[in-house]
Amino acid sequence: MNREQLKNLLENVRSGQMNIDQAMERLKNLPYDDLGFAKIDTHRQLRRGFPEVIFCQGKTVAQVRDIVVRMTEHHPVILGMRASEAQYEAVRTVVPGAVFHADAKAIVAGEIPKPVCRGLILTVSAGTADIPVAEEAAVTAEVMGNRVERLFDAGVAGIHRILNNHKKLIEANVVIVVAGMEGALPGVVAGLIDKPVIAVPTSVGYGANFNGLSALLTMLNSCVPGIGVVNIDNGFGAGYMASLINRLGETE
Amino acid sequence: MNREQLKNLLENVRSGQMNIDQAMERLKNLPYDDLGFAKIDTHRQLRRGFPEVIFCQGKTVAQVRDIVVRMTEHHPVILGMRASEAQYEAVRTVVPGAVFHADAKAIVAGEIPKPVCRGLILTVSAGTADIPVAEEAAVTAEVMGNRVERLFDAGVAGIHRILNNHKKLIEANVVIVVAGMEGALPGVVAGLIDKPVIAVPTSVGYGANFNGLSALLTMLNSCVPGIGVVNIDNGFGAGYMASLINRLGETE
Amino acid sequence: MNREQLKNLLENVRSGQMNIDQAMERLKNLPYDDLGFAKIDTHRQLRRGFPEVIFCQGKTVAQVRDIVVRMTEHHPVILGMRASEAQYEAVRTVVPGAVFHADAKAIVAGEIPKPVCRGLILTVSAGTADIPVAEEAAVTAEVMGNRVERLFDAGVAGIHRILNNHKKLIEANVVIVVAGMEGALPGVVAGLIDKPVIAVPTSVGYGANFNGLSALLTMLNSCVPGIGVVNIDNGFGAGYMASLINRLGETE
Amino acid sequence: MNREQLKNLLENVRSGQMNIDQAMERLKNLPYDDLGFAKIDTHRQLRRGFPEVIFCQGKTVAQVRDIVVRMTEHHPVILGMRASEAQYEAVRTVVPGAVFHADAKAIVAGEIPKPVCRGLILTVSAGTADIPVAEEAAVTAEVMGNRVERLFDAGVAGIHRILNNHKKLIEANVVIVVAGMEGALPGVVAGLIDKPVIAVPTSVGYGANFNGLSALLTMLNSCVPGIGVVNIDNGFGAGYMASLINRLGETE
Amino acid sequence: MNREQLKNLLENVRSGQMNIDQAMERLKNLPYDDLGFAKIDTHRQLRRGFPEVIFCQGKTVAQVRDIVVRMTEHHPVILGMRASEAQYEAVRTVVPGAVFHADAKAIVAGEIPKPVCRGLILTVSAGTADIPVAEEAAVTAEVMGNRVERLFDAGVAGIHRILNNHKKLIEANVVIVVAGMEGALPGVVAGLIDKPVIAVPTSVGYGANFNGLSALLTMLNSCVPGIGVVNIDNGFGAGYMASLINRLGETE
Amino acid sequence: MNREQLKNLLENVRSGQMNIDQAMERLKNLPYDDLGFAKIDTHRQLRRGFPEVIFCQGKTVAQVRDIVVRMTEHHPVILGMRASEAQYEAVRTVVPGAVFHADAKAIVAGEIPKPVCRGLILTVSAGTADIPVAEEAAVTAEVMGNRVERLFDAGVAGIHRILNNHKKLIEANVVIVVAGMEGALPGVVAGLIDKPVIAVPTSVGYGANFNGLSALLTMLNSCVPGIGVVNIDNGFGAGYMASLINRLGETE
Amino acid sequence: MNREQLKNLLENVRSGQMNIDQAMERLKNLPYDDLGFAKIDTHRQLRRGFPEVIFCQGKTVAQVRDIVVRMTEHHPVILGMRASEAQYEAVRTVVPGAVFHADAKAIVAGEIPKPVCRGLILTVSAGTADIPVAEEAAVTAEVMGNRVERLFDAGVAGIHRILNNHKKLIEANVVIVVAGMEGALPGVVAGLIDKPVIAVPTSVGYGANFNGLSALLTMLNSCVPGIGVVNIDNGFGAGYMASLINRLGETE
Amino acid sequence: MNREQLKNLLENVRSGQMNIDQAMERLKNLPYDDLGFAKIDTHRQLRRGFPEVIFCQGKTVAQVRDIVVRMTEHHPVILGMRASEAQYEAVRTVVPGAVFHADAKAIVAGEIPKPVCRGLILTVSAGTADIPVAEEAAVTAEVMGNRVERLFDAGVAGIHRILNNHKKLIEANVVIVVAGMEGALPGVVAGLIDKPVIAVPTSVGYGANFNGLSALLTMLNSCVPGIGVVNIDNGFGAGYMASLINRLGETE
Repeated sequence: MNREQLKNLLENVRSGQMNIDQAMERLKNLPYDDLGFAKIDTHRQLRRGFPEVIFCQGKTVAQVRDIVVRMTEHHPVILGMRASEAQYEAVRTVVPGAVFHADAKAIVAGEIPKPVCRGLILTVSAGTADIPVAEEAAVTAEVMGNRVERLFDAGVAGIHRILNNHKKLIEANVVIVVAGMEGALPGVVAGLIDKPVIAVPTSVGYGANFNGLSALLTMLNSCVPGIGVVNIDNGFGAGYMASLINRLGETE
Repeated sequence: MNREQLKNLLENVRSGQMNIDQAMERLKNLPYDDLGFAKIDTHRQLRRGFPEVIFCQGKTVAQVRDIVVRMTEHHPVILGMRASEAQYEAVRTVVPGAVFHADAKAIVAGEIPKPVCRGLILTVSAGTADIPVAEEAAVTAEVMGNRVERLFDAGVAGIHRILNNHKKLIEANVVIVVAGMEGALPGVVAGLIDKPVIAVPTSVGYGANFNGLSALLTMLNSCVPGIGVVNIDNGFGAGYMASLINRLGETE
Repeated sequence: MNREQLKNLLENVRSGQMNIDQAMERLKNLPYDDLGFAKIDTHRQLRRGFPEVIFCQGKTVAQVRDIVVRMTEHHPVILGMRASEAQYEAVRTVVPGAVFHADAKAIVAGEIPKPVCRGLILTVSAGTADIPVAEEAAVTAEVMGNRVERLFDAGVAGIHRILNNHKKLIEANVVIVVAGMEGALPGVVAGLIDKPVIAVPTSVGYGANFNGLSALLTMLNSCVPGIGVVNIDNGFGAGYMASLINRLGETE
Repeated sequence: MNREQLKNLLENVRSGQMNIDQAMERLKNLPYDDLGFAKIDTHRQLRRGFPEVIFCQGKTVAQVRDIVVRMTEHHPVILGMRASEAQYEAVRTVVPGAVFHADAKAIVAGEIPKPVCRGLILTVSAGTADIPVAEEAAVTAEVMGNRVERLFDAGVAGIHRILNNHKKLIEANVVIVVAGMEGALPGVVAGLIDKPVIAVPTSVGYGANFNGLSALLTMLNSCVPGIGVVNIDNGFGAGYMASLINRLGETE
Repeated sequence: MNREQLKNLLENVRSGQMNIDQAMERLKNLPYDDLGFAKIDTHRQLRRGFPEVIFCQGKTVAQVRDIVVRMTEHHPVILGMRASEAQYEAVRTVVPGAVFHADAKAIVAGEIPKPVCRGLILTVSAGTADIPVAEEAAVTAEVMGNRVERLFDAGVAGIHRILNNHKKLIEANVVIVVAGMEGALPGVVAGLIDKPVIAVPTSVGYGANFNGLSALLTMLNSCVPGIGVVNIDNGFGAGYMASLINRLGETE
Repeated sequence: MNREQLKNLLENVRSGQMNIDQAMERLKNLPYDDLGFAKIDTHRQLRRGFPEVIFCQGKTVAQVRDIVVRMTEHHPVILGMRASEAQYEAVRTVVPGAVFHADAKAIVAGEIPKPVCRGLILTVSAGTADIPVAEEAAVTAEVMGNRVERLFDAGVAGIHRILNNHKKLIEANVVIVVAGMEGALPGVVAGLIDKPVIAVPTSVGYGANFNGLSALLTMLNSCVPGIGVVNIDNGFGAGYMASLINRLGETE
Repeated sequence: MNREQLKNLLENVRSGQMNIDQAMERLKNLPYDDLGFAKIDTHRQLRRGFPEVIFCQGKTVAQVRDIVVRMTEHHPVILGMRASEAQYEAVRTVVPGAVFHADAKAIVAGEIPKPVCRGLILTVSAGTADIPVAEEAAVTAEVMGNRVERLFDAGVAGIHRILNNHKKLIEANVVIVVAGMEGALPGVVAGLIDKPVIAVPTSVGYGANFNGLSALLTMLNSCVPGIGVVNIDNGFGAGYMASLINRLGETE
Repeated sequence: MNREQLKNLLENVRSGQMNIDQAMERLKNLPYDDLGFAKIDTHRQLRRGFPEVIFCQGKTVAQVRDIVVRMTEHHPVILGMRASEAQYEAVRTVVPGAVFHADAKAIVAGEIPKPVCRGLILTVSAGTADIPVAEEAAVTAEVMGNRVERLFDAGVAGIHRILNNHKKLIEANVVIVVAGMEGALPGVVAGLIDKPVIAVPTSVGYGANFNGLSALLTMLNSCVPGIGVVNIDNGFGAGYMASLINRLGETE
């Protein structure tokens, strides 16, 4: 249930179009919908501006499917992250038009809205192997109503690749920078612009990268301010954060 | 040299009010001013919207003083972080009106601008011992032209302290949450609002907090999206990031 | 051999119903029963109030089966944790009515006793993916004779889900809180009640959760006192600890 | 304000002995008392059965003193942990009878109550150097109304020292075991009794003890169930947890 | 080539039974035998009293086989550790009587010598799951000519299991103690005897045992002196060290 | 495009043999060639003296093949590291003569140049299991035009194996030393010679080697100066660094 | 009370020279002597062949003094490790002839016995800065009745320094090798001899030595078997272990 | 004793100008000079081309002084690193002209040689606080006979500061890059040039830099090949490595 739907319901009560019992019925599953193994936070859109996103990893195929079914009663578009092929197939049986973004491991069930924010979110990856995480960020931001562009394989080994895209960097409202190995790219990007940077370390690399720890520490210790860091491989969190920021840029 | 100053200079050249040699002289120390031990990045305001901030830790008293002297030629207000009392005293000999924020260990040399952003930045601390880091964030944001409010000692041990300030949380454009020990507060706050949260882990605590590692990991692993994390005790970085975000909320 | 059986034996010796040789025979395998690869601690129920629990991980199928066979001679119900499907199948050949709790990976061979404690143990999980560990705790406490209730998927991302169950929290004698990722839930729960909380970090999450380290540190560093922490994913230890505590609440 | 005081107040309102305005005045500083730098959680005794305890580390002398002053308006006894000599001296100026436990670094301002629980809490230390942490636990439990006994320097290097005190171990309702270095004692103790054990790792040791990490890991990984672990050097948390458990043993 | 063989050769040269050229031929592959991918240290028995032991992990099946072939020319018994079934099968094609100890993952090619040391090496394991590592130690010591006894599943959860075997502990010249999880057993054993203890941490456990780190740190930090620690799961190293020590106990 | 090709092109423009449009066409894909998922850094040979090397891990088979196709337009020999068998098979379909070094997991597509440096690069491995990493280094250096020799299985357990090769060590211009487990060999080698040593820790070992961390720390902490360390298992980086150094030894 | 004294006492009882009450009086403080803050393990010499050693770090000056006083009633020589100058001064007031080994931070109160073991313990240090730890080992072994020699500053940077002392290495029964930084020396030494090596990592070094972690890991991961490792900077533990081993070499 | 001196001595023996006894006297302290607490490696210049460098940290003032005295008998210039002011004062009493580089904490006793290598070593620091480590590298290289230039405060926050010095980077034979915090500069520099880069992480920073671990991991994981890493804050090691490399560039 989103803000608009709640407002309509309350106006219908006031105007007498809906009686108290009917309203109670509609509202009774608030503030969450209990499936036993999951309590779907149906109020989340009201509080946070976007419905709960399903973290599919560690859930059974049946649990994911059932949560999606219940959520489609309230929301036009549902997002499932870190999903498996099998979870997607189960979702498709109940939401036929659902789409699976294999790179991003994301299920999108329902209509992706037209961009509601004019500002641009730019998603940059340092290497080709970082693309799946960058796609997770990009898909998240698109589903949340943003205009998104991608700039892949622009790491510091050939720094002209990012310098040559300076104009694109300047144009964006928020820049998401995804990097593994030494994770130096977010600092370089942040030093060139006056907009917030969301840094996403990835587990790409080997040896002393310790599954992404190296890139994470690099980003946290950047001598360049204006960077917010999310968890290793957390493209979703970056896309979400970028969306909250980009929304601020809109004249309401 | 800020954007306005550069534009004036170029217009003066075009109009003939300033000849090429004079312009060259003015511009010659671009893009940085080399003191030998430091290369002051005089273009930083042009690129990033705010002049270079001096990281005083590890610099001698004389180095800090000399950098401030050189920077005052270009900028109306200069910020020095992680400064000692002695560094401040040296700065005051060259910039008499400079102020020292003892909690935040910040030197402000010059005029703090009137807030140029209407949006509110709210700085929350989980405990009393986290206040110095929260103040570092707040002073940074104020010097960068923001309206800032403080809400201190609102940790999860008495969760009603944050729930009772729900209205204030909702009002802010960006919320900075500073917490040591288990660092759970940013996740709780982010779950209640639809604005970006900047999370700052602090080294407050003992034992298995490992000087802030505990709070840092908590914030990175939050199941609540919409959080960007900065380094342990990095109030400055949080204030800077919040300022970049808050500026997006302005109609230009 | 439990306390009651031992007492009977000794009284039989005193009354002459059992001669010394017979008693020696009965007692000869005390204080442990040596299988070569395992020394079954047959006195454990006497010392600790509950027989040895079999840690199945790392044991062969045959070893688990043989230990169960030997233990059923002394105890009405035997618990095997971190068991595989194959180990269970082997146990079922010797204890036909044995039950396998697939979620909890627990074998229960024998009768689960009626709850002998009136006090309630409440098992709370932060997310759906934490349920297996929570079930491990719940099954353990049930086998040890406790009344157990479950409250799943009540994490801090939607904090009203736990606040709305305040009455249930207050009712319990002990609350087990199972959480992965940032592991903030135990602190929030402990802050609301005046009963002991057993905190169980799980390895649920990714990246900088470092297989549960993040949640573990959070729980150890909680600013809320009244929390005892067990090993990552150690639902069994939590259920056992809760049982020892709950027993104290009984009038003997 | 404790439960009794609140009940009296409400009965006075019902009986007309106190008017609404007077009640409002009494209740107005609920649920917390805001000093700016601290929000004293005045409801904590209602929720948790014991007032907020002051974590003195990282607070200024003046902050500690002011918090104590404000809290004495509501509570007969106040506990301050990790306090310095100087903080204590400041407290003594406002609460003349306040006592400083130098070993435990604890300020007790007010009357320690007579033990209200009949059950015994036994505090065991592995070595002499662990005594300060053990004392922190013991003082906390005493201030919370428990009967406490101490058994110091009983580590596994001479295991007969703990085995010879078996009777004392059996007598206790809860045993707090404090150990540094390899931290093996809690597991040995837990294996001998059928009561809950609270394990406190200390930072005592050197080299690969990594400031208590070694003892912490030992306790978390104990093959003996029935142990709840608290943070390194967190005697306070252990005393608090033990008190919550011991209270369950009382017939109310 | 062992010391005896070398002495004979030199005496044969002196006595004229072997001419210089023949001796040169015999000695030419000293001090190592180069296979390209491996330099077999043929002098190791002379220097260390036992021939090189083959660390099979990370070597191909063919490499292990070829090294064994070459070594059998010099030594009556060859030991291969961390061997796979496949490596063993290949060895058996060239040394038909070779034996595979599946638990210990050890290949023994050749005759195990009669015990040459009278002293006893006792190998103790804390749990059943630690047996493979304990067997690795025991087989190593047996191949090196020692009398070895085994005492398995004697961990601290039921401390009487080790106390009841006190006599056996006292009898040994060296005690190898193998333990996972919290790894407390070596300290308890060392505290009971006046002989050296070799402690072997294992990776048995889960969660915060961090693949054996927990047990390793426990053993290094033991408050009981007289313990030498080897690498996690390094039964071979323990058996080797014990053999060197046991040999000192012989009257030569 | 290498330096020679670029110079020819510019001279052709100057002499009129090539018109501006033709030159533009040739240069248009400078400074990188954008495939969407990858930006091939075509200028790298100009800047660094060797074309970009493809890090195949984490790239799809198709991506590797397409990058190779595009690069063969500019370079006579292309190197792909950490490649799979499948990636190689795909490359072979487009570059028939491509060779796969299975040990080194390296694809070499094109002609390996004759050694252009007279100086010798010596690649030493401590054990047989370290050979794959040593081969990665050796193949890299060979492809970059160096004379390379190998000396395998020369670890400190039989220190005469390295001392006996002293002459070979002295002959080399640069020595690459590859070692796992305790990683002591580079320090011993560096102490014997007056040439730079490149140290490569490997993940060979088990237990407390923590996947190569042990060898890495050993090499970084060597009391012997003259050692540069690369990432764990990074034979490629070592070979590349050695090539840059060896080139300095040439009279140009 | 040592074995001899106990035997005499029992013989005196048998012969009637001492009556039961007198014997009880003498034995009453067995098996430990309780000072409240310490339980002196008076039986330790009986069990372990050497009286309890006082770990002075973390004990007050008065505690150390009182423990020494009580122990001198039972033992001819007492050893206190990690002692401060002040603790020593206090001991000297009660045991006038006590000696302080400043390097080793060891108090020796009483007569050092003549060497009772013929075998040699050789103590080797890699660097000059490692001498204090090496001295701690040497003094411990001397006080326990061993013949000890020292060989300092023989690290791998100049490996001939250890090779030139080969004869001395061969002569020893046990070799203690003390090394900081990369800690490679114990492996090199062990590879040259056929006697057990006790390896002591020290915290000497900086940066990525992580206070001795580097040397510790090196020693644990040595590819050379025959090494037992003790805690970082634990010279005492090494001297104690070496003494237990050396005693085995005696014909009794 | 250097190579030249040794050659002269031997020629003098051959020609009869020096008799055997005299030569023996001269050579008798070979290959090291034993002071008891130190074995000065007098052959190191012969083996490594430069005499032993004194690591002063952890040595007493007297030890440093005595080592210098002894070494001046053999070498014209002696280098002491990580020296204290007090150590320097003691050295000056025996070598009056000795110089102390306070930034680098380096004692230079004797004549710095004229540059013997034509190639340039460029020392770059990322920040002002990194200068002491950069100076340690620069002084080392100068004492070893190299031409050295410095380029300080050129970090990635203002990347034009390094790009503008491109010409200087290209000119150097070896570039030493010193950086703390995120340590990204070496990768950026290496990507721009075709010469070897020595990367030195520093402990400059705070929080999650973990005393230089962050910068260290960044440098090890760089996606740019051609970088050799030394220990945290190890300017000396970098200068030494750079000198060995630079010497290769000379035509001999």
